[in-house]
Amino acid sequence: MQERAARTHRALILAAAEEFDRLGYEGASLARISRGARASMGALTFHFATKSDLAAAVRAAGRESVAPVVRSALGGTRAPLEELAELTFTLVRLLEHDVVARATARLERERPRGGTSLALEWVPALRLLLERASAAGQLRPGVLPETAAVLLTLLIEGAWAEIGRGRTAGVAPGRVWELVLHGVSGGADK
Amino acid sequence: MQERAARTHRALILAAAEEFDRLGYEGASLARISRGARASMGALTFHFATKSDLAAAVRAAGRESVAPVVRSALGGTRAPLEELAELTFTLVRLLEHDVVARATARLERERPRGGTSLALEWVPALRLLLERASAAGQLRPGVLPETAAVLLTLLIEGAWAEIGRGRTAGVAPGRVWELVLHGVSGGADK
Repeated sequence: MQERAARTHRALILAAAEEFDRLGYEGASLARISRGARASMGALTFHFATKSDLAAAVRAAGRESVAPVVRSALGGTRAPLEELAELTFTLVRLLEHDVVARATARLERERPRGGTSLALEWVPALRLLLERASAAGQLRPGVLPETAAVLLTLLIEGAWAEIGRGRTAGVAPGRVWELVLHGVSGGADK
Repeated sequence: MQERAARTHRALILAAAEEFDRLGYEGASLARISRGARASMGALTFHFATKSDLAAAVRAAGRESVAPVVRSALGGTRAPLEELAELTFTLVRLLEHDVVARATARLERERPRGGTSLALEWVPALRLLLERASAAGQLRPGVLPETAAVLLTLLIEGAWAEIGRGRTAGVAPGRVWELVLHGVSGGADK
């Protein structure tokens, strides 16, 4: 793709993300997206033949925004539970601040069968970090990495649902994390 | 309302819940709902002038299905954390098995501003039970009821999001609850 075309492609994805995040799939207007990207409708349909193609491109971009966060956590050198805390907080912050990730989550809520789930990017990483934590003796005796991974998955999904509704929890995430950490590891002192 | 009209009203709400749960607000067809309720389109529009009215009625019915669960937990005679466990499990099961509750949750995800949030029914109850648990010495020292309420709210919202996508966690809920309980209270032995 030529540089100008690539720039238009990216601008369209960003404008589409804004629109899907705000109004959902059905509410999104292709005319407004093309205006938002300062592109013609012709350019939009050249890059994305249908609204469904555009939504799929936004979802692919959303997965790409999660991938480096996950790689960084898996490649980190700190204790597994610290990497896990960092990954969890970053995933929640990403939804708060990255419109492409937020649009991806909304599209996925609305059209579960419209593409690969974002969870496929980060759930395996949670499991892997918890298995490492278990191997490093960081988990309480009897706590299975699998169970802790489900707990964290539900928490992250729950935080995303709240963010999607424009609600914020109103409690410092660090305090909530301390409860989770105590449940999983027996305390922050490990 | 006459008995027959009340029966039709209820049948329309149930058929609408099936349809909203399966296809969402935009995808729902009023013609299919009237057929599902064995009512005429005339009867449907007599009871609900618009699709939006019908969705509001489903959401009100969803809140009504949650209310007795909450009342039972608040009026229970067991230790507060036991009532809390029961309430949490029941709220998750409700979404799994009650089509009206499930449709309510989906409509709320899709149209956050379309009515009163279901959370208003159960979040205050979580807080109250956790305050009672705190007063009864069931919480770990330093754990604020408010923080524990946020943790549980996120977990329940997360479980609902997973159910909405047709996924199930694949881990016994009791194991996940044990982690939460340990984090909140310091262990199941309290």
